[in-house]
Amino acid sequence: MNRENQIDLSQYQVRTDLALESHQMAVEQYGEQIPGVYINEEEIEGIHISRLSIQSEEGAKRINKRKGNYITFEADALKRHDSTFQGQMTKVFANDFQRYLKEIGILEDAKVLVIGLGNWNVTPDALGPLVVEKILVTRHLFELMPNDVNEGFRPVSAVAPGVLGITGIETSDIVKGIVEESKPDLVIAIDALAARSLNRVNSTIQIADTGINPGSGIGNKRKALNRETLGVPVIAIGIPTVVDAVSITSDTMDYLLQHLGKQMDIRNPFGKRPSKNPEIHQHFLGMVGTLGEQEKRQLIYEVLAPLGYNLMVTPKEVDIFIEDMAEILANGLNMALHSAVNEENIASYTN
Amino acid sequence: MNRENQIDLSQYQVRTDLALESHQMAVEQYGEQIPGVYINEEEIEGIHISRLSIQSEEGAKRINKRKGNYITFEADALKRHDSTFQGQMTKVFANDFQRYLKEIGILEDAKVLVIGLGNWNVTPDALGPLVVEKILVTRHLFELMPNDVNEGFRPVSAVAPGVLGITGIETSDIVKGIVEESKPDLVIAIDALAARSLNRVNSTIQIADTGINPGSGIGNKRKALNRETLGVPVIAIGIPTVVDAVSITSDTMDYLLQHLGKQMDIRNPFGKRPSKNPEIHQHFLGMVGTLGEQEKRQLIYEVLAPLGYNLMVTPKEVDIFIEDMAEILANGLNMALHSAVNEENIASYTN
Amino acid sequence: MNRENQIDLSQYQVRTDLALESHQMAVEQYGEQIPGVYINEEEIEGIHISRLSIQSEEGAKRINKRKGNYITFEADALKRHDSTFQGQMTKVFANDFQRYLKEIGILEDAKVLVIGLGNWNVTPDALGPLVVEKILVTRHLFELMPNDVNEGFRPVSAVAPGVLGITGIETSDIVKGIVEESKPDLVIAIDALAARSLNRVNSTIQIADTGINPGSGIGNKRKALNRETLGVPVIAIGIPTVVDAVSITSDTMDYLLQHLGKQMDIRNPFGKRPSKNPEIHQHFLGMVGTLGEQEKRQLIYEVLAPLGYNLMVTPKEVDIFIEDMAEILANGLNMALHSAVNEENIASYTN
Amino acid sequence: MNRENQIDLSQYQVRTDLALESHQMAVEQYGEQIPGVYINEEEIEGIHISRLSIQSEEGAKRINKRKGNYITFEADALKRHDSTFQGQMTKVFANDFQRYLKEIGILEDAKVLVIGLGNWNVTPDALGPLVVEKILVTRHLFELMPNDVNEGFRPVSAVAPGVLGITGIETSDIVKGIVEESKPDLVIAIDALAARSLNRVNSTIQIADTGINPGSGIGNKRKALNRETLGVPVIAIGIPTVVDAVSITSDTMDYLLQHLGKQMDIRNPFGKRPSKNPEIHQHFLGMVGTLGEQEKRQLIYEVLAPLGYNLMVTPKEVDIFIEDMAEILANGLNMALHSAVNEENIASYTN
Repeated sequence: MNRENQIDLSQYQVRTDLALESHQMAVEQYGEQIPGVYINEEEIEGIHISRLSIQSEEGAKRINKRKGNYITFEADALKRHDSTFQGQMTKVFANDFQRYLKEIGILEDAKVLVIGLGNWNVTPDALGPLVVEKILVTRHLFELMPNDVNEGFRPVSAVAPGVLGITGIETSDIVKGIVEESKPDLVIAIDALAARSLNRVNSTIQIADTGINPGSGIGNKRKALNRETLGVPVIAIGIPTVVDAVSITSDTMDYLLQHLGKQMDIRNPFGKRPSKNPEIHQHFLGMVGTLGEQEKRQLIYEVLAPLGYNLMVTPKEVDIFIEDMAEILANGLNMALHSAVNEENIASYTN
Repeated sequence: MNRENQIDLSQYQVRTDLALESHQMAVEQYGEQIPGVYINEEEIEGIHISRLSIQSEEGAKRINKRKGNYITFEADALKRHDSTFQGQMTKVFANDFQRYLKEIGILEDAKVLVIGLGNWNVTPDALGPLVVEKILVTRHLFELMPNDVNEGFRPVSAVAPGVLGITGIETSDIVKGIVEESKPDLVIAIDALAARSLNRVNSTIQIADTGINPGSGIGNKRKALNRETLGVPVIAIGIPTVVDAVSITSDTMDYLLQHLGKQMDIRNPFGKRPSKNPEIHQHFLGMVGTLGEQEKRQLIYEVLAPLGYNLMVTPKEVDIFIEDMAEILANGLNMALHSAVNEENIASYTN
Repeated sequence: MNRENQIDLSQYQVRTDLALESHQMAVEQYGEQIPGVYINEEEIEGIHISRLSIQSEEGAKRINKRKGNYITFEADALKRHDSTFQGQMTKVFANDFQRYLKEIGILEDAKVLVIGLGNWNVTPDALGPLVVEKILVTRHLFELMPNDVNEGFRPVSAVAPGVLGITGIETSDIVKGIVEESKPDLVIAIDALAARSLNRVNSTIQIADTGINPGSGIGNKRKALNRETLGVPVIAIGIPTVVDAVSITSDTMDYLLQHLGKQMDIRNPFGKRPSKNPEIHQHFLGMVGTLGEQEKRQLIYEVLAPLGYNLMVTPKEVDIFIEDMAEILANGLNMALHSAVNEENIASYTN
Repeated sequence: MNRENQIDLSQYQVRTDLALESHQMAVEQYGEQIPGVYINEEEIEGIHISRLSIQSEEGAKRINKRKGNYITFEADALKRHDSTFQGQMTKVFANDFQRYLKEIGILEDAKVLVIGLGNWNVTPDALGPLVVEKILVTRHLFELMPNDVNEGFRPVSAVAPGVLGITGIETSDIVKGIVEESKPDLVIAIDALAARSLNRVNSTIQIADTGINPGSGIGNKRKALNRETLGVPVIAIGIPTVVDAVSITSDTMDYLLQHLGKQMDIRNPFGKRPSKNPEIHQHFLGMVGTLGEQEKRQLIYEVLAPLGYNLMVTPKEVDIFIEDMAEILANGLNMALHSAVNEENIASYTN
C-alpha cells in the first residue's frame, strides 16, 4: 500500500496519559534498555506498583513523556466495586503517597492546594472535581483560629477550577491566580486520564512529579501546571477513564495476533514470539498485519473518522467507577496529608 | 483454524436492539429478498426515516426480531448538540408519531402511560427516567377536576419503575401492577438501547409496536412488556446509547476491508463488491479476513474477555447526549400526545 | 373582636404529623389524663424515646391522630452533622426497630417492601426517595438464586413511587399495584413530615403502626396506605423537615408569654403557671394574648395569606439535613431488617 | 420591662441584604426625608422597579447600606412558576441592565467576568453557581480565534469560586487571583441574599453598583468584592432566598397590628395610621406592642435562640424557585451582555 501523501503520523500516535503504557510501547519499539530510564516493581496486597524514573532527555524522547518520576498502581480488582478492596487500595495509596511526600522533601506542615481538573458536567471527566468535594479542607481554620487546630493536621485547600469551555478562562490562569493569592507550598492536581487500553480504565492510578497539562490526554494542548508556571512543586495524580476507539481496535488486533500466534506456538517447538514475526502477522492478518503501529492507527483513523464521531469512549458503568475512584483518592489524600486521619476515623472526616 | 469445541455461537452474535441493523445483517447474509419483510425509506429535513415491517415468522427468524413494525429515524446531525436541528428532529418525530398513533387506531382521548425504563444512576441507561421527568403529566387533572381541563389534552401519566438491582422487583411486575391500577389504553415504553455500530449511538431513534424486553439489548432477559403481558398495546421507543467493544473492533475490521477494497476497486475495473470477495479479504486481513461473522466475533470475544471487562462502552460525552435525546423524545411525545402542545408553546409545557 | 362569619376553624389547626406534638396540645387543652392514652418515656445514649399508645376512640379524637402506637426519637444533637452521634442514633434506632418488629409479630424471614414517599425534586420532600436509594435490596436474589443467599438476610425490596404531580397517578394506587404483584408481608413507608415546631425539624424520628396518608401533613388528603388498603401491615417512619410560618409565629408568641411570665414569676412568689393566666397574657400581649389557639392561628393566617405565599418553610441547610437523616434511616433499616448487617460492616452494604 | 444588661442591640437588627427594605425601615424610623437619598419608582409589565440612590454618608448611615445606586425589581408573579411571566421578567431585566451598563460607562466590547458566589451544595445558596452554569461564555473564543467570533458578542467569562468552608480559601482571594490573571473590565457578582420579609423571597431582584461582601447577609463578614479590592467596577446582582425566623415572627406581629388597627379604623373616622399609635399597639399586643423594633427582635431572639437552631429558613419549594431565578438572571445577562442574543434565539444560547 503506497501512501505518498502521508504527512504527520504523530497525530495517529497512541493517545495515552499513562507513562507506563508509553514505556511499554517504547520497549516494544526500542527494546528493554533505554538509557537513563529505570523501573522497579513490587506487589502489595494484590496491588501492582511500578516506579518508573525517566532521568535522561533521550529516555523522555523515546517514551514521549517528560523527565520525572512516575508511580503507577494497578489492580483489576478496583473494577469490582468491592468496598473491602477499595479500603485496602486507599491504605496502600495513602502510605505510599505519604512516604513519597517525605522523599521529595515536603514537610509535615507544608501547605497543600488540591486542584481538581476536569469538567463536572462530563461524568468521565469529573474525577478531579469529585475528589475536591471530598477533600478535608483545613486552610481556613489555620487562618482564622490557628490556636484551635488540633495536632495532626496541616493547611489544605481545594479548588475545582472548571474547564475552558465552561469558564472562558484557561484553567492554568485560574490556578495561577489562586496559587498567587493563597500561597501553598505544594500543588496536587487530580485529573481524569486517557489510556491506550480499555483494560486499564478505572483500574490504574498514576502519580507523577512532572506537573500536568490539563486535558493533554485527549488532544487539547493547554498551558501546563508545573513548578515553572506555578513556582511550587506540582504532583499530578490521575486515573484513566476514557480510551479512544482507535486504540480499542488496534489493540484488539494486536491481541488477536498474539492469541493466534500462541495457538500456533503450541505446534511450533521453536516458539517464536508472535508479535515479532512478520510472516505470522501476514498469515493471520494479511496486509494489515504487516503495517507498523502508526500506519495501522492511521488506517483505522481514516476508516473511523468519516463516521463523524468523537471517538473517546468510556465504560457504560462510568458513574459508579468515577464515584469509587474519587472516594479512594480523596480518602487516600486525607490520610496521607493529615497524620490525625487514619483508617479508623476516615469516615467521619470525608464528606 | 480448527475449532472443535465450539458450542454456542449465538452468544457471539451481534448485540443490537435496532431492527434496522439486524435487517442489514440479515440482508448481508441472506440477500435483499426476505419473504414477508418490507422496508421503505424517506428523507425529511435531513432525517432519514425507514419503515421496516416484519410480517412473516420466517422474516422474524432471519432478522432475529419479533414480528411487527419498526420506524427508525437517523440523523448524524443529532450528535452536534445543535438546538435548531434538535427542534427540527422533535417536530418530525412528533408529526410522524402522531400519524402513527392514528394509523394503529389509538384515539385522540386514549389514556397513555409513559414508562421510562432504565437505571437513573447509570448515565447511558438513564434515558427513560429522564424522558419521564420531562413528560407533561395530565391524568390526575382529568381525575380530580375533569371539567377544568382544556381542550387539546388527553390523560397522560408517567412512571420510571427503576431496575431490578435497585428495587428488587422485576420491572415488568411493577409496570403490570401500575397498569392494572391506573388502566391506561396505551403504554409507551422508553429505553436506552445497545447498537452494533458506535456511529448510531445518539443519532438514531427507533419506534416499535412489538413491546420491549427491559434490558434485552445488553444481555439481561427480563419478562417482556407487551400486549400479551399488559393487556394493552405497548409501543417501544428507544435510542442506542451503548455499543460493545467487540462490535467496535469487528465493525472497524469490516470497514477496513471495505475501505481497502474500494481503494483496490479504483484500479480494478470489474468493481467487485469488496465484502463479497474472499480473496480480497484474505489479501488484506489474512486468515482473519476469511472468518464468518460469528467466528470473527467469537475470536474477538475470546481475546477481550480475559481482560476482565464488561465491554459495553458509551461516548465520553454521554451526559450531554442523553440530556439532548431525552428532551427531543419528551418534547416530541408532549406534542404528539396533546394536540394543544406545539412548537410555539412547547417550552412552557416541558419541565 | 367580633368575628361573625367565622366558619371552619379546623383549617387553622396546627399542622403537625407528629403524634407527640398533637398529644402535647391535647394535654394543654384537656389536661394530662386522656382516657385510653398511655405514654412512657426513656433516655438512651442522649436520645429521648417516647412510646405513645392511643387505644381509645376518645383519645384518637382528642389527639386528632389515628388509634395505634407511636414511637418518637428526639435528639437535638442530630442537627450537629456529627457522624459519631449519627452512628449512635442509627444503632439505637436499629435496635429499637428490630425489637419492635418482633413485638408486632413480624417474622425474621418476612418479606419487606420499603416505600419512599415524596418528591425527589423538592429537597425537603426527598427523604423517602433518598432512603430507598440507600436500602440494601435483596428480594431479587431470593427470587433468582434462592440457594446462594447467605444467612442473616431477608427479602427486601424498595420503591420510590413519586408524587401525583409527577406521575399523574395516586401514589396509593401505584403502591397498591406493586404490593399486589410483589406480595410483601410488611410495608415500611418513609415520608418527610410537617412539624409544628421549627425546633423539631431534623431532630425527631417517628415510627407509627397506623399507616400513612401520603402528603397528609401538608394539607393534601390522599388515599391512605394502611392494612385496610394494602392487605398487609404498614409501618410509617417519618422525620419532620418543614414547618409552616403560621406555627413559627404562633409558637414564638407562646414562648414569649412563657418567657415573660417566668421573668415575672421570679418576682411573684405565688408562681402561677404563666400559660394558664389570662391576665398575664393580656398584660404582655394585649388582646392577642387573650385569643384561643385556633383564633390566634386564624388571625395570623389571615395576615400572612394575602402575602401570596405558600408558607411551609425549611431550614436553609435542608440539603445536608436530609442527606444525614436518610443515611440514619437507611442504615438503621438495613441493620434492623438483615441480622447479618451490623455496625461494623454497614458501610460495605449501604450505597 | 427593665433590661439593664442590654449591651449590643445591633446584633438584633433586621438581617436584610435588600437596600429597599433597609430604606423602608429607615423611613419608618426617621421619616420620608433622608438627606442625600433619592428614590423613584416605575411599573413595567407588572414589574415594580425602584431606583434608590444613596449619595450622602448620612443617608448611608441611616439606611445602613453603602453609598451607591440600587435598582430593585419586584413581582409577586415570579413565585407562580409561570414561564410566560418569567420570559417577560427576563426581557425587562435585560433591557434595564443593558441601559444601566451604558449609563455607568461600560462599553459594548468591555470584557465581563461573571462571579457566581455561594455554596452549590446548599440549595438556597446555589443561585450564583447555577447562574454561572447557564452564562454564555465567550472569552476563550476571542482569545483563541478572535477573527471567527461573530458581531454582537463580547468576551464573557464566568466562575463559581465556592465558599470558604469548601475551598479553605477566602472567596475574595480566589476572585482577586482570577481577576488579576484574566483582566476583565467589569465584574458582575451574583449572590443569594437574605431578606427581612418572607414575602420578598424569590420575588425580588436587586442590582447594586456597590460591590458585595460574600455571605454578608447571613452574618459572615468576608472580605469585600468591589472596585477598591479588585481594581475594576463590581456590580452585584442578588435575589433573596432566605429569611430568618426572627423576622418572620417580628413582621407578622407588625402585620397583626396593622391588620387589627385597620379593622378599628373602619369604625374610627379619624383614621390614625395604626403603626404610629402606641395606644392601639398596647391595646392589641400589650407590653410587647410598646417595644421598639430592636427590643422586640432581641426579645424574640432570646426566646428562639435556646431552641438551638440556626434560624435561617427558606420556602419548601426552594429547588424550583432557585432554578427559575437562575434561568431569569442567566438569560437576562446573556441578552444584556451580547447584543446578538435576544428573546427569539435565547433558547439556543443558554445551556
